[in-house]
Amino acid sequence: MIIELKSSVSEARAQELAQQAKAFCIHYDGRWTLITSSSLKALDPSFESETERFTVLADDIQLASRVWKKETRTITLPNGIALGGSTGNTILIGGPCSVESEEQIEQSAQLMVELGVSTLRAGAYKPRTSPYTFQGMGLDGLKLLAKMREKYGLNVITEVRDATHIEEIIEHSDIIQIGAKSMYDHGILKRCGKTQKPVLLKRGFGTTLQEFVQCAEFILSGGNPNVILCERGLRTFETKTRFTLDLCGAAWMKEYTNLPIILDPSHAIGYAYGVPDLARACCAMGVDGLLIEVHPNPKVAKSDASQQLNHDEFRALAGSLKAVAQAVGKRIA
Amino acid sequence: MIIELKSSVSEARAQELAQQAKAFCIHYDGRWTLITSSSLKALDPSFESETERFTVLADDIQLASRVWKKETRTITLPNGIALGGSTGNTILIGGPCSVESEEQIEQSAQLMVELGVSTLRAGAYKPRTSPYTFQGMGLDGLKLLAKMREKYGLNVITEVRDATHIEEIIEHSDIIQIGAKSMYDHGILKRCGKTQKPVLLKRGFGTTLQEFVQCAEFILSGGNPNVILCERGLRTFETKTRFTLDLCGAAWMKEYTNLPIILDPSHAIGYAYGVPDLARACCAMGVDGLLIEVHPNPKVAKSDASQQLNHDEFRALAGSLKAVAQAVGKRIA
Amino acid sequence: MIIELKSSVSEARAQELAQQAKAFCIHYDGRWTLITSSSLKALDPSFESETERFTVLADDIQLASRVWKKETRTITLPNGIALGGSTGNTILIGGPCSVESEEQIEQSAQLMVELGVSTLRAGAYKPRTSPYTFQGMGLDGLKLLAKMREKYGLNVITEVRDATHIEEIIEHSDIIQIGAKSMYDHGILKRCGKTQKPVLLKRGFGTTLQEFVQCAEFILSGGNPNVILCERGLRTFETKTRFTLDLCGAAWMKEYTNLPIILDPSHAIGYAYGVPDLARACCAMGVDGLLIEVHPNPKVAKSDASQQLNHDEFRALAGSLKAVAQAVGKRIA
Amino acid sequence: MIIELKSSVSEARAQELAQQAKAFCIHYDGRWTLITSSSLKALDPSFESETERFTVLADDIQLASRVWKKETRTITLPNGIALGGSTGNTILIGGPCSVESEEQIEQSAQLMVELGVSTLRAGAYKPRTSPYTFQGMGLDGLKLLAKMREKYGLNVITEVRDATHIEEIIEHSDIIQIGAKSMYDHGILKRCGKTQKPVLLKRGFGTTLQEFVQCAEFILSGGNPNVILCERGLRTFETKTRFTLDLCGAAWMKEYTNLPIILDPSHAIGYAYGVPDLARACCAMGVDGLLIEVHPNPKVAKSDASQQLNHDEFRALAGSLKAVAQAVGKRIA
Repeated sequence: MIIELKSSVSEARAQELAQQAKAFCIHYDGRWTLITSSSLKALDPSFESETERFTVLADDIQLASRVWKKETRTITLPNGIALGGSTGNTILIGGPCSVESEEQIEQSAQLMVELGVSTLRAGAYKPRTSPYTFQGMGLDGLKLLAKMREKYGLNVITEVRDATHIEEIIEHSDIIQIGAKSMYDHGILKRCGKTQKPVLLKRGFGTTLQEFVQCAEFILSGGNPNVILCERGLRTFETKTRFTLDLCGAAWMKEYTNLPIILDPSHAIGYAYGVPDLARACCAMGVDGLLIEVHPNPKVAKSDASQQLNHDEFRALAGSLKAVAQAVGKRIA
Repeated sequence: MIIELKSSVSEARAQELAQQAKAFCIHYDGRWTLITSSSLKALDPSFESETERFTVLADDIQLASRVWKKETRTITLPNGIALGGSTGNTILIGGPCSVESEEQIEQSAQLMVELGVSTLRAGAYKPRTSPYTFQGMGLDGLKLLAKMREKYGLNVITEVRDATHIEEIIEHSDIIQIGAKSMYDHGILKRCGKTQKPVLLKRGFGTTLQEFVQCAEFILSGGNPNVILCERGLRTFETKTRFTLDLCGAAWMKEYTNLPIILDPSHAIGYAYGVPDLARACCAMGVDGLLIEVHPNPKVAKSDASQQLNHDEFRALAGSLKAVAQAVGKRIA
Repeated sequence: MIIELKSSVSEARAQELAQQAKAFCIHYDGRWTLITSSSLKALDPSFESETERFTVLADDIQLASRVWKKETRTITLPNGIALGGSTGNTILIGGPCSVESEEQIEQSAQLMVELGVSTLRAGAYKPRTSPYTFQGMGLDGLKLLAKMREKYGLNVITEVRDATHIEEIIEHSDIIQIGAKSMYDHGILKRCGKTQKPVLLKRGFGTTLQEFVQCAEFILSGGNPNVILCERGLRTFETKTRFTLDLCGAAWMKEYTNLPIILDPSHAIGYAYGVPDLARACCAMGVDGLLIEVHPNPKVAKSDASQQLNHDEFRALAGSLKAVAQAVGKRIA
Repeated sequence: MIIELKSSVSEARAQELAQQAKAFCIHYDGRWTLITSSSLKALDPSFESETERFTVLADDIQLASRVWKKETRTITLPNGIALGGSTGNTILIGGPCSVESEEQIEQSAQLMVELGVSTLRAGAYKPRTSPYTFQGMGLDGLKLLAKMREKYGLNVITEVRDATHIEEIIEHSDIIQIGAKSMYDHGILKRCGKTQKPVLLKRGFGTTLQEFVQCAEFILSGGNPNVILCERGLRTFETKTRFTLDLCGAAWMKEYTNLPIILDPSHAIGYAYGVPDLARACCAMGVDGLLIEVHPNPKVAKSDASQQLNHDEFRALAGSLKAVAQAVGKRIA
């Protein structure tokens, strides 16, 4: 149950009531709001006089539910671009899988600037499956990303791998990316609830929609309203492609949650040949953003070489996305 | 291996060579063509003088492979509409899950005519999961479909459930649909190889792309070149939607096979709310066709009630598909 | 709903009542029994005087449900061996993937006789994934199997691939095997409902338990009470093994259905190295039978070469199974 | 590649060589050993004089591979019980899902003592899917577990949820459990490589065997040889049971890795009714241990109520496991 207290209720009083109801207490949309377990179905009468509105939810998808809040949340990024709400924007996020060198990430940043793309992505802490391969540049990579932000005015998004370096990520990025393998990490989720920076939460490849949105609830109930859901492919029996992009799931999220949605076709298929068609399909879904991997020279990339577009392919794709976005009443930003 | 014989080679001689090579023998593109197992890697020298060209394939995807035939096949439907090849067409196929009555199927037919949609779909033999529910109208349903074809000049597509009524389906339909649950049925596949009617082969929900295209090879090697691949959703762990539409797989088919592709978002998600967004996504993939379920009154439908659009929803969707098709250089037909 | 009529009700009267209730009508355990859709929750009062007992089921798992019939069905095979019920038997079924020659199948038959194994398996119509490989010996293979039955007194089980040769299979086998790829085939299922021969129904690798048992209902509601469920592995994302044997599903079937259960570890893992351990695990589940592939010379087998045990491996396994069966209160037969 | 240096090579020299080869350097079986990427296929000649033996592995499963080390590793627990190697032991680990109170966990401990079970399990940091439910007792729970160890001489195993409390887990447990949702956590994996305490690594429900064993390599290459693999069920399309226990995968691990294997039937099926049969099946696989959930009063359990056995059910199961273990040449410890 979500209990929106009257705007006259003070923080101290809200905390008191939260303790009484064993509830989370967040400040949202100008008022203190309590969230209890969804198993609570009736408002305690002693709360009535201080409650503006309360909403009973069917399950523990509460703050993310359209039943509680109908409109998609609007999230504004540091460089002024917004997504969600009534913005009509489909944000394009491009960049390489990993930061590999200053030269490489600067070429990527310049491509984004050239194409008017607002946001640069790249990983510094890579969640590799093997200990015997490139693990990312770590803090040095984060500093290069921050440098690109300063120099080119781009938003920067990068992934947190585990809770041991979450502070570094919060410090050096504009959007915190929680990767598919880290999305259950309570250490990360709870810390992200204590910042106001936007968080892009990727769905695990073995994660149900219910579990996925419940992970977002860990951040939302911690007090950070700026969560973006990202679908990036499920692990299925099909192995000709690396994963199976779940656009049925994206349709479900759009129907039932109030969080902006970004789709990642690059990680889903895992092969560059299919990325343009898939990216256009994602765009035609009318979602809030796209995450596309692009590398100055994919063949020598230190990770995910097979799925990154080269610069010319990305230029061609960015052009065609504008037409598709327009056909469904959206605008690439 | 695919061995294209010289155009001077007679049918009798081709059959003789086929027997010698333990090969299938089909007449394709004006010449006799032999197909042996892909494990054969070198041409028997005694075949050389009568062979125009031979192609060694890596696995038993042979006649369907772009390695052998680069361009997508063109398939022309009875009412003159063509798909694949250089037609630029994205065929829209609409209609109810099942034929339920003459009145109902006629309303569906009229909607297709109103919107300029070329092809009407509906099932007569339903592969239901329970013996205790509606099983389809059978032959009576087929006759109603044939009547609609006569009256309205629509192509008609309907599903064969098992080999016992394959002759009826061939007689009464313009496109033979092999459903997801019947796609391994050798009785059906082999019979479909002996007709020239177009066959829409649906991918099983537990079927790999490799197996799927190999099922198409059963039809192609039988002598029928007119096979269309249809992706309609995989069975995954996600149950908020009925199935998971595999657009990564569609991208693979487009890259590696020479067969036209039709996508079925209705069966994939299983809920009407998501069908318009998904259909637009499918259209933006640049595929050859879309299969959409629409019913005059979905609430009372005898099967798949939850996923069928009503007529107004279908009208709105058909309009928006034109814009998306245009944005990717295609035309709704 | 299952309506068991009084034993005084004649067949003619039962058929009349069935028509009135739009119900299936079968003769089971000495009385006529009607089965309607499970959506019917209350008995029509006009049926009361002729009804002995009626059972409302939650869904369309009806005749297979333990709610209706508590005890596992007993099925007696032609050579007198029985499984299910209170027999305590775990039937061992062995033999090659395919009949390849008289010499080969006779060696297999002799191994079964040597080890006191009651039932010989082998395929004649193989549901291969490629048209370009060995498709089975067909009717010639069936005749060789029948010859082994005559000569050695073994039960013979073989697979039906599609409805076009179901009569041949019924004629030449003691247990009709419906394979994983054919289990939705209404032509086969309905025909099997009209015989009394035992039917071993394999679960499709993409089939839910609900759907699987509902397929059994097609046979049971047709009038054949002798259905055995066989789990042989699901298709999952794991590809180091061919399939994933679902023993959780086997536990569910044992708890909720009244049908005997046979497990097939050979097809599940697809590699001989794991078959003995898995077969012992299956045996320890306390199920009614095991299906194990064994070939005189697996290396040259024309199908499924990697998963077949050789004769010595099978001898060793058969010995160890006796000990495991005894540990769980069962007996290998 | 794994390079075992001569026993005469000092630590300082080994570290020098490791740096030169960009290799991990661990002390294993009495000698310094370097591990490079598996892409290195030939030994640098300058290493030859100091190298005892080197092994080229096909992929990044290296230290865990039977190609390198044939025998299963032996791991000795604090109370003297050992598993793996030639011990013949199948360790039984029992206990509730969560520590809920001193009274509850003491009842569990006493049951283990009564039955001669060596190891007690219970969670203190629970990786719940919802923020609005019981999250575990945290450090207080760990202290209760440690108290049971002191009082009853049991080994204690408990789960680390994320990297923020890994030090607490290492301090208070005898076996560190890395749960299915945390198994990709580099913060945890790398820290576990720096202790010598046994680590039970659970396979993620969406994790391939290749990825799973590679996660173990993170710990092994850090210098901790005491890793146990635990299979606890995959997430598949089947939802009648919570997960699908992958015994085919267990057979693969047994064949190809040198790590002891423990199976967890309780989490796999998620329902108590099936746990005894499944546990016996697991035992018949001849693995090194079983993890079974048991609660003094499952109905009131604060987490996973449906899958925990009660004390009487556990007693009956423990008895029958002895017979099955004996049938396959193992002993319950």
